[in-house]
Amino acid sequence: MNISHIEHIGIAVENLEEAITYYEGVLGMKCYAIEEVVDQKVKTAFFLVGTTKIELLESTAPDGPIGKFIEKKGQGIHHIAFAVKNTTEALKQAEENGVTLIDKVSRKGAEGLNIGFLHPKSTLGVLTELCSKE
Amino acid sequence: MNISHIEHIGIAVENLEEAITYYEGVLGMKCYAIEEVVDQKVKTAFFLVGTTKIELLESTAPDGPIGKFIEKKGQGIHHIAFAVKNTTEALKQAEENGVTLIDKVSRKGAEGLNIGFLHPKSTLGVLTELCSKE
Repeated sequence: MNISHIEHIGIAVENLEEAITYYEGVLGMKCYAIEEVVDQKVKTAFFLVGTTKIELLESTAPDGPIGKFIEKKGQGIHHIAFAVKNTTEALKQAEENGVTLIDKVSRKGAEGLNIGFLHPKSTLGVLTELCSKE
Repeated sequence: MNISHIEHIGIAVENLEEAITYYEGVLGMKCYAIEEVVDQKVKTAFFLVGTTKIELLESTAPDGPIGKFIEKKGQGIHHIAFAVKNTTEALKQAEENGVTLIDKVSRKGAEGLNIGFLHPKSTLGVLTELCSKE
């Protein structure tokens, strides 16, 4: 798998507005976009730090993945996303190397990227996203 | 606070050797250094992904911070480290903005960097490290 950089870090927050205030006011970052991803049941806020994005994730429903994560573990880092050339191909490579996939082929995620997740049980506990423009 | 980029992502692993095999064999990264940080009771392995490092952390003692983290939460992402110009000054700024500090002034961390931690209770659940060469 050819990873060029960390595309983003996903962070689960209880309240997006309060979190934006912290990231802007204390860490000095600038929120450049807010987007709702309906099928993931989240509202997201984006910040650019060097070449990597911080993606804050607030759940829009208690039964969504972020709602469940916060209920179980509290607020905090949720996943890491690596930029690859082609997500579906990279998912296939991962599976050939024994990784359990959450997504067999890529699907559309925030910012129009093609995304797919590896299961944390086969990535040493790290929920891992792959994403690409292609 | 002026953050230039994400310096590294710290990931707690049970077995460093097994984790290196996964990061190299499946994700295609290259481990460029292994270092023991005695006062943190960890052995670390470093990978460079774009401009950010992945820092794998294996505990060398059950009562160390990584040993306790894994006992409580299992393997997974442990902290995020932002690169700043001067860690002690950035810690001071964070405190002035109401953040609870773990370190009041910087101390030496892996790779000779000056590091300091913000307490996750005032950073929305994210254990946050600041680090600088100065």
